[in-house]
Amino acid sequence: MEEKNKLTMEKLVTHCKTTGIVYPGSDIYDGLANTWDYGPVGVELKNNIKKVWWKRFIQESENSYGVDAAIMMNPKVWEASGHVASFTDPKMDCKSCKARMRADNLIEAYSKGETDVDAMTNEEMEAYINEHKVKCPICGNFNWTPIRQFHLMFQTSRDITGDSNDVIYLRPETAQGEFVNFFNVQRTARAKVPFGIGQIGKAFRNEITPGNFTFRTIEFEQMEHQWFCKNEEQGFKYYEEYKKEAMDFLLDLGFNKEHLNYKDHEKLAFYAKAACDIIFKYPFGWNELNGIHYRTDYDLAQHQEYSGKNLFYIDPMTNEKYIPHDVEYSIGADRLTLAVLCEFYDEETLEGGDTRIVYHFHPAIAPYKVAVLPLQKNLGEKAREIYKKLSKRFMCTYDESGSIGKRYRRQDQIGTPYSITIDFETLENETFTVRDRDTMEQVRMTVDELIKYVEEKIMF
Amino acid sequence: MEEKNKLTMEKLVTHCKTTGIVYPGSDIYDGLANTWDYGPVGVELKNNIKKVWWKRFIQESENSYGVDAAIMMNPKVWEASGHVASFTDPKMDCKSCKARMRADNLIEAYSKGETDVDAMTNEEMEAYINEHKVKCPICGNFNWTPIRQFHLMFQTSRDITGDSNDVIYLRPETAQGEFVNFFNVQRTARAKVPFGIGQIGKAFRNEITPGNFTFRTIEFEQMEHQWFCKNEEQGFKYYEEYKKEAMDFLLDLGFNKEHLNYKDHEKLAFYAKAACDIIFKYPFGWNELNGIHYRTDYDLAQHQEYSGKNLFYIDPMTNEKYIPHDVEYSIGADRLTLAVLCEFYDEETLEGGDTRIVYHFHPAIAPYKVAVLPLQKNLGEKAREIYKKLSKRFMCTYDESGSIGKRYRRQDQIGTPYSITIDFETLENETFTVRDRDTMEQVRMTVDELIKYVEEKIMF
Repeated sequence: MEEKNKLTMEKLVTHCKTTGIVYPGSDIYDGLANTWDYGPVGVELKNNIKKVWWKRFIQESENSYGVDAAIMMNPKVWEASGHVASFTDPKMDCKSCKARMRADNLIEAYSKGETDVDAMTNEEMEAYINEHKVKCPICGNFNWTPIRQFHLMFQTSRDITGDSNDVIYLRPETAQGEFVNFFNVQRTARAKVPFGIGQIGKAFRNEITPGNFTFRTIEFEQMEHQWFCKNEEQGFKYYEEYKKEAMDFLLDLGFNKEHLNYKDHEKLAFYAKAACDIIFKYPFGWNELNGIHYRTDYDLAQHQEYSGKNLFYIDPMTNEKYIPHDVEYSIGADRLTLAVLCEFYDEETLEGGDTRIVYHFHPAIAPYKVAVLPLQKNLGEKAREIYKKLSKRFMCTYDESGSIGKRYRRQDQIGTPYSITIDFETLENETFTVRDRDTMEQVRMTVDELIKYVEEKIMF
Repeated sequence: MEEKNKLTMEKLVTHCKTTGIVYPGSDIYDGLANTWDYGPVGVELKNNIKKVWWKRFIQESENSYGVDAAIMMNPKVWEASGHVASFTDPKMDCKSCKARMRADNLIEAYSKGETDVDAMTNEEMEAYINEHKVKCPICGNFNWTPIRQFHLMFQTSRDITGDSNDVIYLRPETAQGEFVNFFNVQRTARAKVPFGIGQIGKAFRNEITPGNFTFRTIEFEQMEHQWFCKNEEQGFKYYEEYKKEAMDFLLDLGFNKEHLNYKDHEKLAFYAKAACDIIFKYPFGWNELNGIHYRTDYDLAQHQEYSGKNLFYIDPMTNEKYIPHDVEYSIGADRLTLAVLCEFYDEETLEGGDTRIVYHFHPAIAPYKVAVLPLQKNLGEKAREIYKKLSKRFMCTYDESGSIGKRYRRQDQIGTPYSITIDFETLENETFTVRDRDTMEQVRMTVDELIKYVEEKIMF
C-alpha cells in the first residue's frame, strides 16, 4: 500500500506543473524529449539556489574566483579532455519496438551486476547478449541491431553548407571552462596556490535514456568549483575538506542528514586518486546529488600538452615550479533544485482533518519571501502601497482572489515563508498580520519591522 | 590625432583582459572565433547587471512573471516563428582570400545605401555584383563564388549516427520561450491581461561577420520581457511606456543621456506595428543597445496555428475572448555589459600629473563592493577578520601586495566603490579608513557603519 503523504515523482511533476514551478519544455508542441522549463515560481527557486551556492563557494572564499566561460569552445579542448575519443555509449536498437538501449545497461541488468561490463569490448557485449538471448525490456523480443557507439557530445558547426567539417561541440561539462582559464585567472587575480575557480553554466549531453523529471536531462546547469593545490598530500587533504563543505552546504539548506550519504566511486578514472558522490534519497531511490573528485594534475597537464602553452605555476616565495593538482566539487543546479523540491515537500494534516501541501524551504531560497493579501478587494490600494515598498527589497507576490484560507494554502504549496494580510486595522495604524508558513502563527508588524525581520531570516 | 583619454575598443579589450573582466574564449587554444569568457571581475559585473534588470522588470512589477525555458525547443517552434523558412543570410566567398561576406552588405557598402537591397533576390544581387564588379573589401580581388543562403540557426541532432534527421536548433532568440509558455504562465499564475513574461537566457546565431568585442557574438545572453495586452490601442500605449521604461533603466544606471537615443526602425516586419532601438554611442560609433517592438498578436496567433492549442485569453470580467497583443522589450546582457564598460570608463589626471584609470560603475553593479587592504602584512589577521564579516554581506576583495596607492589604483580600474585600509588604529578602536572611488575622500568607520552605508549605496 502506498504510504500516506508520500511524495512520488508523478505527484511532484503534477504539483510543479500546476503551481508554476516547472513545465514540460515546448509544452504546447507536446514537448521535446526530456527538456523542462522553469515557471515563475521555479525560476526564482533555482536562481536563489544558484545565488546561495555562489555566495558560499565564491563570495565568502577569499581565494575563490568566478568565471563564466562560453558554451562553445575550441574543439581541441575536447581532444585534450578525452571527450572526443571516449565520451560515448554503446547502444543498440530493438528492431521490433524501436527502443534504443545501452548494451552495457542491458548486460548489467541481466547479470544482476555480476558481469564486469566495463571491461568488455563491443564484440564481447554483442556475444554476451546473443549467447544469453537478452531480451528487450520494453517489448520482450530478442531482435537487436549491432552495437553502435553513440557520442554524448552534441555537435554543431559554424559552416552549415556541408562543405567543410568545422565541428563545434556543445560543452558536456563546465569544468574545462575553469581549466582553460586557469592561467588567465591566476595571472589577472594575482592568485596564489591554493586557490579556486568556480562557475555556474549550462552543459549538454546527448543521452538516450534519461528520465526522472529533471534528474537527468539533455540540457542542464552545473555549479562547479575547482580547487588548485600543490601536490598529492594537499590534494587528499582538500578532497576531505570539500567532502565536508559540500555536505555542510546541504545541511545548512535544511536537508535531513538521514537523507544524505557519501558514496565512494567503485572505479576511478586512471588519473583520479579519490572520488565520491553525495547521494540523496529521492522518491525513486538513493542516487547522486553531487560529486567530489581529486583529479591530480591531470587536467592542467593535458591542456599544457595539447595547447603547447605553459601552465606551470611558480611559487612567488620559493620559486618552485609545478602543475597544480585539482579537487573538483560539482553539483547540478537543476538536480539540487529537484532534491530541494523532494526534501522540503510536506503534506500535513491540520486540526479539523484538512491537509495542506507545504514547502518548508529555507527562506533564503524560497521563491517569494512575502505574499501580500488584502482581506477584501477594497483594501487593494493600501495593499498595493505595501507591496510596492516590500518588492523594492525582495521578491513578493500579490493575491486578492479567494478566501484568506485558500490564499494561505496557495502560498504554502510554493513555500512562501511569510503571508501578510492587509485588514481594516492597517488603514488605522499601518500594521498587518504576518503569518508564518511553518508554525502558522500570526503576529502584527509594520512594514519596517517586517523588512528587518525578513532580511534576517533570508541570510544564508 | 587621437583624442587624449579616449576609449578605443582596442584599449578596452586589453584593459578587460589584464584586469580579469573578459578574456578571449578558449584563449590557450588561440580562441574560437568570436567567443569570450568572463573573468572573476566580469562575471560579477554581468551577474549584477542581470540582477538589477530582473529586479526592475520582474520583481518590482506586480504583473510580470519570470521563466527559464530550455535552449533546446521542439523544432516546430521555429517553423511557427518563421525562423526555419527565413532566418538566413545571403553569402558569398572570395575565392582569392577565402573571406566570407554577406552579399547584401557588399551591395549596401558599394552603393552607399542607395540601393534597396532588401527587395533584391539572390539572382538580382549576383547580377548587381557582377555588373559593378564589386570587389572583395579584404583583398581587393573580384573573384566570388555564387551566393548561398546561410542559415543563422545552429543545428544539432539527437541522433548523431546520421541515420535520421531529427534536427534540434539552438534557439536564436529567447522570445519563443516566453510565447510558448504563455498559456502555462497565465493559467498557473492566474495572471490577468495585461501581464508580462520575462526571461534571461542564452541564444546562438551562426553569424559570419561578427565583431567589436562582445557587441555581436555567436553566443550571447538576452534579457527579454513580453508584455501581453488586449488590442492595438493598448499595444501602442504600452509600446510608448516600454520605450520610456527601457530608457529610464539606463539613466538610473548612470548613463549620460547624451550617449543614448531612440532610433525608429526604417522597415517593419509585416506583422509589426512599431519598432525602435535605443542606440548608444560606443567607441566604434552609434549602434543598437536594445529594442522595443510592438508585435501585435502575431506570435501567439502563429503558435496557436502551428501547435493546434488554444491560446485565446478569456477576460474573467467581460468573457471577451481574444489573442493578446505583445510589446517586446529586449536587451542583450552581454551588450549592456559592454555599453557599461564603455560608458563608465575614465582616465583622470590627478594632482601631480599622474593619471588613473577608473570605472565609475553604479555601486549596485560594481563587481566588488569593498576592497579590504591591510596597511602592512602584519595587520593581515585583523584585516581577514573584517573581510570575513563583510563578505557575508557582499562581494569583497582582499589585497595585501604593493603600496596602498598602487592598491587603490587596482581597485579604481575595476570600479570598486569603497576601499578600506586596516591600520594600527583599527587594532585599538575597530575603525578603518573608507576611501570613496569617485571623490577619493576618506572617512573612518566601523564594520557596522560600513555595512549600513554600503547597503544603502547599492540599492537600485
